[in-house]
Amino acid sequence: MAGNSIGQSFRVTTFGESHGIALGCIIDGVPPGLPITDTDIQHDLNRRRPGTSSYTTQRREQDEVKILSGVFEGVTTGTPIGLLIENKDQRSQDYSAIKDLFRPGHADYTYEQKYGGLRDYRGGGRSSARETAMRVAAGAIAKKYLKMQYDIQIRGYLAQMGSIVCDFKNWNIVDSNPFFCADASKLTELDSLIRLLKKEGDSIGAKLTILAEKVPAGLGEPVFDRLDADLAHAFMSINAVKGIEIGDGFKVIKQRGSQHRDEIRTNGFQSNHAGGILGGISSGQIISANLAMKPTSSITIPGKTITRFGNEIDITIKGRHDPCVGIRAVPIAEAMMAIVLMDHLLRYRAQCSAVNNLVICKQPAFTS
Amino acid sequence: MAGNSIGQSFRVTTFGESHGIALGCIIDGVPPGLPITDTDIQHDLNRRRPGTSSYTTQRREQDEVKILSGVFEGVTTGTPIGLLIENKDQRSQDYSAIKDLFRPGHADYTYEQKYGGLRDYRGGGRSSARETAMRVAAGAIAKKYLKMQYDIQIRGYLAQMGSIVCDFKNWNIVDSNPFFCADASKLTELDSLIRLLKKEGDSIGAKLTILAEKVPAGLGEPVFDRLDADLAHAFMSINAVKGIEIGDGFKVIKQRGSQHRDEIRTNGFQSNHAGGILGGISSGQIISANLAMKPTSSITIPGKTITRFGNEIDITIKGRHDPCVGIRAVPIAEAMMAIVLMDHLLRYRAQCSAVNNLVICKQPAFTS
Amino acid sequence: MAGNSIGQSFRVTTFGESHGIALGCIIDGVPPGLPITDTDIQHDLNRRRPGTSSYTTQRREQDEVKILSGVFEGVTTGTPIGLLIENKDQRSQDYSAIKDLFRPGHADYTYEQKYGGLRDYRGGGRSSARETAMRVAAGAIAKKYLKMQYDIQIRGYLAQMGSIVCDFKNWNIVDSNPFFCADASKLTELDSLIRLLKKEGDSIGAKLTILAEKVPAGLGEPVFDRLDADLAHAFMSINAVKGIEIGDGFKVIKQRGSQHRDEIRTNGFQSNHAGGILGGISSGQIISANLAMKPTSSITIPGKTITRFGNEIDITIKGRHDPCVGIRAVPIAEAMMAIVLMDHLLRYRAQCSAVNNLVICKQPAFTS
Amino acid sequence: MAGNSIGQSFRVTTFGESHGIALGCIIDGVPPGLPITDTDIQHDLNRRRPGTSSYTTQRREQDEVKILSGVFEGVTTGTPIGLLIENKDQRSQDYSAIKDLFRPGHADYTYEQKYGGLRDYRGGGRSSARETAMRVAAGAIAKKYLKMQYDIQIRGYLAQMGSIVCDFKNWNIVDSNPFFCADASKLTELDSLIRLLKKEGDSIGAKLTILAEKVPAGLGEPVFDRLDADLAHAFMSINAVKGIEIGDGFKVIKQRGSQHRDEIRTNGFQSNHAGGILGGISSGQIISANLAMKPTSSITIPGKTITRFGNEIDITIKGRHDPCVGIRAVPIAEAMMAIVLMDHLLRYRAQCSAVNNLVICKQPAFTS
Repeated sequence: MAGNSIGQSFRVTTFGESHGIALGCIIDGVPPGLPITDTDIQHDLNRRRPGTSSYTTQRREQDEVKILSGVFEGVTTGTPIGLLIENKDQRSQDYSAIKDLFRPGHADYTYEQKYGGLRDYRGGGRSSARETAMRVAAGAIAKKYLKMQYDIQIRGYLAQMGSIVCDFKNWNIVDSNPFFCADASKLTELDSLIRLLKKEGDSIGAKLTILAEKVPAGLGEPVFDRLDADLAHAFMSINAVKGIEIGDGFKVIKQRGSQHRDEIRTNGFQSNHAGGILGGISSGQIISANLAMKPTSSITIPGKTITRFGNEIDITIKGRHDPCVGIRAVPIAEAMMAIVLMDHLLRYRAQCSAVNNLVICKQPAFTS
Repeated sequence: MAGNSIGQSFRVTTFGESHGIALGCIIDGVPPGLPITDTDIQHDLNRRRPGTSSYTTQRREQDEVKILSGVFEGVTTGTPIGLLIENKDQRSQDYSAIKDLFRPGHADYTYEQKYGGLRDYRGGGRSSARETAMRVAAGAIAKKYLKMQYDIQIRGYLAQMGSIVCDFKNWNIVDSNPFFCADASKLTELDSLIRLLKKEGDSIGAKLTILAEKVPAGLGEPVFDRLDADLAHAFMSINAVKGIEIGDGFKVIKQRGSQHRDEIRTNGFQSNHAGGILGGISSGQIISANLAMKPTSSITIPGKTITRFGNEIDITIKGRHDPCVGIRAVPIAEAMMAIVLMDHLLRYRAQCSAVNNLVICKQPAFTS
Repeated sequence: MAGNSIGQSFRVTTFGESHGIALGCIIDGVPPGLPITDTDIQHDLNRRRPGTSSYTTQRREQDEVKILSGVFEGVTTGTPIGLLIENKDQRSQDYSAIKDLFRPGHADYTYEQKYGGLRDYRGGGRSSARETAMRVAAGAIAKKYLKMQYDIQIRGYLAQMGSIVCDFKNWNIVDSNPFFCADASKLTELDSLIRLLKKEGDSIGAKLTILAEKVPAGLGEPVFDRLDADLAHAFMSINAVKGIEIGDGFKVIKQRGSQHRDEIRTNGFQSNHAGGILGGISSGQIISANLAMKPTSSITIPGKTITRFGNEIDITIKGRHDPCVGIRAVPIAEAMMAIVLMDHLLRYRAQCSAVNNLVICKQPAFTS
Repeated sequence: MAGNSIGQSFRVTTFGESHGIALGCIIDGVPPGLPITDTDIQHDLNRRRPGTSSYTTQRREQDEVKILSGVFEGVTTGTPIGLLIENKDQRSQDYSAIKDLFRPGHADYTYEQKYGGLRDYRGGGRSSARETAMRVAAGAIAKKYLKMQYDIQIRGYLAQMGSIVCDFKNWNIVDSNPFFCADASKLTELDSLIRLLKKEGDSIGAKLTILAEKVPAGLGEPVFDRLDADLAHAFMSINAVKGIEIGDGFKVIKQRGSQHRDEIRTNGFQSNHAGGILGGISSGQIISANLAMKPTSSITIPGKTITRFGNEIDITIKGRHDPCVGIRAVPIAEAMMAIVLMDHLLRYRAQCSAVNNLVICKQPAFTS
């Protein structure tokens, strides 16, 4: 059944397999008047793009995006935007060996079960992380709108890889290394770990932190379409994500109420344990989330599995894979944050109005 | 904008404020033929019900549910089921003191911002956890269907409160103590902690584990309506939840790929790090999730805040509150799991069929 | 599968059977700040209410509506509004005779097929027009909002019954006769026809005209969620509706392009063949629609049918029925128009904004 | 706000402007196992294609469709199908003259109002009927599935053009003339009318009849997502449609109940005034609908309008236009019927099951 759309007022629908002809998406609900060019979208696509460093898969895709509709004379018209990226570096022959296998840790077995034995096995088909390119493209449009219209900024970084904890130092560092790491002192360690993993043919998990600054108070539609619930949905829909935290996340288990609750003074909230969301609605504080990304399942260390015909075998997955999928997931997670915020901004505006001279939707008292 | 519905094929829509006349919900999409009575629903409502032990709020609500439609001669007809619970023990006077305040850690401030200063301040109004009664009621119907039709069993327990880790011992213990704890050896410790918190006027966070057994392989609609994404959405929509894990969750950060991936033999998967979901689709294994619940924000220890008029004051929240909201959240989280699985079972069936004599949707090879 | 909700930003979900305990609905997405009381809703319910004249069914229902949530201190808060009407005058014994029959012209057979033989046969159960009471209740809230906020007025009248064509004379007449007829000179004729039908035990079809005045230009979301498409959906979802026209409707078949197109001058459109909608978007002109309502199927003239067990029999439907369902459908159709316009106003506002100092959504040049 | 998707379980989302780079769509929810090739889709596209006879616009588009995803080794996999048609014969210079005008009868004015003055004026941009090519493409996939899996056949014909009524004679005739006329004796008359209109620079309205045969009983989700309501929505979303009838449609106004109701015998319904739908659910009879199509607004007879700057002028619309848009709308209307039936078949299957050994969803007793 249909499941490839996200968002209600701002809706993104994607298609495309890893080794198919092309990836594409339709972005419906972009307000008119937003200046947008291929270049705006390409910037984030390049951040996610494979083959850009020795730390990621060596599949070389230019990921050149084409805007097919919805933009006229450089500006959005309010009609749906169609985007297309052609696959160029498919090496389908790499995958014929695994055609009849279920790679452990992959979605081969579940796709086989769900779709009655019919699946595009080449590179994981639809289950490949290649699909996320279109999320990044759609997210780039949302990001630009949020920035231009509300000065909202969405950024993420690698907070941990294996045992290497990378604290936040500053954003400039993030942009200047291939790990999206915000702590320059950890770069050597990260580099060594990736080299080791490559040598061993293994992979590692990661933790990402994603922040949204200057989000106005009032976004989120309780009780089910809460902002945090929709963020959890969006983040968990990214390949390899196994855990999500908003604000203090799992640390709250040991916290006392007197410690967790964010006290308020006239200059604003005095802390941000909540991660910028209270009762499912943005508070005007920074929205913060952590994502746990599992280690890549495509590794060269042999693993036990069965064939579609029920025979037990050991497999070694060859091909071009990231030793840590968490690295390239930073722009993907930013994109999902942007898509959700964009949707909720539009939904918020729908409700926002004055009735009978009663002033509704006044500005928040503070936005610290 | 509308945000009080969850699910597509099986859709639950709720209404009701903590101190309003009644809570209600409409459950749309229940297949015909399910025998259902008030008693079936009441069982889970009683598990969630306040005032049943000294460990939870002393608000005494019988939470008697009435089935208003959709059931005829004891059996569902396929038309929408309307449910109603009248509020009986509203003590609205308790709340007049906080009418013009923003209780720290609560949704008072964000509701004020979102809805232009208009809100039912009595007991938190719509943002109160009282709203979750209807989720439990709807979940009870889903649970019964899943059990009768597929033998699916959904159960949860308290995995941790503060620093007290409660391992799973057996399900009988869970049903026989007010903490939903599965480890009898921890009951004294839990009791002492709650007593201490009550004395101190403080509260504590908790971790819950929810499991679904015998879920068939094939549920979940990638790439956005993945089963894990929809579960994350449903869980995060529960009041006080700040973190979610599927399977190994945040432990994956330190895992190697060789360690995380669940290997396969003809007798089934050899481990379950994935938590029963691969590529957003159920694998036939046990589905497992953890939830982090923040400590109750309603505590008697004074807290700093401001009034709607911008004056700084200290408040002490009186009233009848749970020192650990995590306790009563077990049946709520089970209900959300049931609602999501029910929705995805119906969605799965929509797609399931034979085309042109090609057999589709064969049974999984194993369901261990 | 779930199908009892209408609208996206403003969403109405209903439940209830003709002879069940109660009818109810949840109205989600009402903006905060709208003053609303039971009386506001009761007015339209009374217009639809059975038993008020000798021209309609003699079932006597007070249709007293209770607001259960979403309104605080007389004003909407933005949270979902739960409404309830208890059924009082169910005479289920009337229907036991038809328990195992498929009344011709009714939904008995199709419900039987759809829901596997399980249905509440009392008074048609969910397929009864009694269900529309909740539509009228929800529509009353939409109407009030549209009127207060935008001065939009939605009104309808009986345009034809059988061969009696009732032209529009003025609105005062509509309110002063039980037929919703706008032409005083036709009242005697209508009265005679209804008396004749009652004597003969037969029924008759009708045509309604529904108008919305002062709707701003810009509502409607092409290409699928066009305003006219959503109106067609809403109207056709009313029991007994078999045809819908927007503007000139079926008259366009014989029209030339030079005759149909509404020319424009600086003082506005020079005609309104389009019925106020162009390209699926409101033009600022009056929105007009016609509905064709089939004759009541519940008549006392014997009809041929079969039982659930496959036996052929003749039936005479007793009970309390309208000789012309079209009469009481006027407030129902107005309500559906209001619900759709309300939804589209909220959706329109979501998109409406200034980007980068570019002024978007300026007022229409004219609204004649 | 997003409005370019139709369907829930089977969902079609489209993009593309008349003179943009390309048109495209995503078809989400196609069950796995359906053999599909470009040729299957091309057949219906060719029936809709412009430039194929002297009776339609002379814009020459090959409308060659490319399948970009969702089909592997000739068979659908259950993942979304991306389709693309490149625009080849855009002559944008034709339209620069009308850049700042509102063509009467067109959506120029309403798009201008809705989207804040930003619109792709070339050939009507998104409001052009060119958009419907993707509907036909999506409909072709639905049609094939419905035919293969359920032997459902969806066909339409031109029932009237201006005053020329074309009765149904047989389907072979429909396929052998460019008017989709089912009555060979009217072809000369139709030809003369079109020639006259071309000479006069005018256009004419039309009526279409669309039929679906062998649709199983039970499709449709009351009370809002009724099958007839969803069909009305889908048909009214087609450019130029101003009226819709199901079954007897507007003829019911003058009918008696004793005349309209379809009586039942063991060999099936004795008539089909209802048009195959009762209570919003298919009855197993032939589903029939009529559509009223307005005359093309693009005509060379001068018309009065204003510019965006408020100046009154007369315009003559040049370019390549159909004198009767109704002609080419037959395959479009068939496609919309197929999309709605496909969606409802999947939705029906979601609900269809046995609970606790109670047999649900037995086959209809008859399907005449």
